[in-house]
Amino acid sequence: MVVKMNEAFYMQTALQLAATALGQTGINPVVGCVIVNSGVVVGLGAHLMRGEAHAEVNALRMAEGKTNGATAYVTLEPCSHYGSTPPCCDALIQAGVKKVVIATLDPNPLVAGQGVAKLEAHGIEVSVGVLELEARSLNEKFNYFITSRLPFVTLKTASTLDGKIATATGDSRWITSSKAREEVHAMRHQHSAIMVGVNTIITDDPSLTTRLDVPALHPIRIIADSTLQLPLDAKLLHDKLAPVIILTTTQANADKRQQLELLGVEVIDCGDGLQVDLSLAMRLLGEHNISSILLEGGGTLNGAMLKAKIVNKIILYVGAKIVGDPNAPSNFNFTGVNLMADAVSLEQVHAEMVGEDIKISGYPIYKEEGG
Amino acid sequence: MVVKMNEAFYMQTALQLAATALGQTGINPVVGCVIVNSGVVVGLGAHLMRGEAHAEVNALRMAEGKTNGATAYVTLEPCSHYGSTPPCCDALIQAGVKKVVIATLDPNPLVAGQGVAKLEAHGIEVSVGVLELEARSLNEKFNYFITSRLPFVTLKTASTLDGKIATATGDSRWITSSKAREEVHAMRHQHSAIMVGVNTIITDDPSLTTRLDVPALHPIRIIADSTLQLPLDAKLLHDKLAPVIILTTTQANADKRQQLELLGVEVIDCGDGLQVDLSLAMRLLGEHNISSILLEGGGTLNGAMLKAKIVNKIILYVGAKIVGDPNAPSNFNFTGVNLMADAVSLEQVHAEMVGEDIKISGYPIYKEEGG
Repeated sequence: MVVKMNEAFYMQTALQLAATALGQTGINPVVGCVIVNSGVVVGLGAHLMRGEAHAEVNALRMAEGKTNGATAYVTLEPCSHYGSTPPCCDALIQAGVKKVVIATLDPNPLVAGQGVAKLEAHGIEVSVGVLELEARSLNEKFNYFITSRLPFVTLKTASTLDGKIATATGDSRWITSSKAREEVHAMRHQHSAIMVGVNTIITDDPSLTTRLDVPALHPIRIIADSTLQLPLDAKLLHDKLAPVIILTTTQANADKRQQLELLGVEVIDCGDGLQVDLSLAMRLLGEHNISSILLEGGGTLNGAMLKAKIVNKIILYVGAKIVGDPNAPSNFNFTGVNLMADAVSLEQVHAEMVGEDIKISGYPIYKEEGG
Repeated sequence: MVVKMNEAFYMQTALQLAATALGQTGINPVVGCVIVNSGVVVGLGAHLMRGEAHAEVNALRMAEGKTNGATAYVTLEPCSHYGSTPPCCDALIQAGVKKVVIATLDPNPLVAGQGVAKLEAHGIEVSVGVLELEARSLNEKFNYFITSRLPFVTLKTASTLDGKIATATGDSRWITSSKAREEVHAMRHQHSAIMVGVNTIITDDPSLTTRLDVPALHPIRIIADSTLQLPLDAKLLHDKLAPVIILTTTQANADKRQQLELLGVEVIDCGDGLQVDLSLAMRLLGEHNISSILLEGGGTLNGAMLKAKIVNKIILYVGAKIVGDPNAPSNFNFTGVNLMADAVSLEQVHAEMVGEDIKISGYPIYKEEGG
């Protein structure tokens, strides 16, 4: 690798440091920091776990004795307030850092710029915007949660070229290759929770855990189950690998609820209707500090979530095969789109090959109603 | 552009020359030729139209007086037999060429190698295989037709992320962006014929011509119409822009057939059944020297062509939008796939962005029945 020593290179390194912690910082952002003095990297750091040291502090520790007059490259504006740790601005000031290069300001508009102001008030030169888009993208889940208090929902689905997620008889092994399926498991590690509809449990009895070659974090398992049809012997109710949350309504059977709660499951009422109020569900899950959800629903739940406009990102793996059958289940089921111009469109669309499969990602654009 | 003067560079140039003629050589392959002498390009040529000079001859003409001791780079093995023009091998020999570099042998196994043998018998050094895959891919339609006498069928379709080609009410404007639609028109220029089902004519009354910023060739228009439902006032029956061929069966109404023939249409019987025998249709179209077909069918025709195993290549444009409705029409309709492992799979899959859309291409793999 030919390396050009410039701002982008140091910031790219800091982003890479940050990315290693994706999924393990809870509701905190991932942040990386590189400290350079007289043309030499003297410190590297990342924020690894919520409640533990921030990226700047870790990097300053590594650079101890060499921080005076140094430049710090940080992927996120240093904090200026006391949280579970002292403000990073103070640490940078005390260390005698001369310049701070920041990829992006704090996503919370109420505090954005305060870190910069504090550093500048202490005579530190500050520059903002190096690799800003990359830095924002890395923390897209956190940025959404911290400003909306709603979980960032990534809808992941796998279908054939004709949009089918199984054959008409229900067979779905396999649509995609092992490489794509492994990527999905890494995605589970990087989300606070995974969400499916109860029919997925009834049909497949999945464990919904993260299975990779190396140990990884299991997401909290959320099941949308309006009428509490969840079988009491479902595997995930007994494996103790991660918490289980069931979304239902006040109309659900009280006995069944009690049986589930006795198994250690949290049952959350989402409205008084016949169906789970999905928008309310997101608010309640946000209050539970669930900052991101990987939605692995079938066509019905995917369709309902899209229709409710609570999907933030879509990742579609397409296996290059064709099922053909009109009775085979589809990746998205909802109604009401009569004009192609009214279809749910994605923006920032990206396509790439993952092994033998095609990976398509993008962000749904929701139009205002009746505007 | 930094250019490295080597075999691959000259052959790439020859391939580029060949590619300019895609679509205009009829049932002939496209071929390009570059002649180099003492480190200098002295001749460039391509085969442009069937019945006209071959690539080598055009290049030798440009190089006149400078061909003695030269090296010729040709994308296809020079012909050794008299066709509508004298053999290119003879021209190369007479010109005093010292070396011939060939990308790929004649695709017809019955004659492959004869050109090489003739050149070598006259003391010319021959090398085969430079950019062979690229050269074969460029003539994939010709290669298939010349060995099978069946048209190479490229199935082109455009769908949403959920495999829909319209909404439930039939609206399909637009699934893809103008850039993808323009690419499809260039594809029409590069195929002998375009093929649709009669329902497409009844619904959309399209002209099925090539519409680009610059004049281009219109494909022969083929309509699968088992019971001759084609409206006599259909636009393409009267525009005189390109021939029209209707595929039907012996059971079709004789009066309607006569009315169509009076309009200058060729009506071809494809079997005695209720439906057009598509495999027979391909044989008959091959006998008509139709070497390639761009299939722009709806889900039913696409499905039937796939099921009949006569689709050679699939090009799918995916508009990054979602319709959702189970009643919206799909890109492929056929039945009989109960296991995902039995779905029609593609090989050599490639995905890329075309404007805002995703273009996926590949080649169907047909399994042997009951094997």
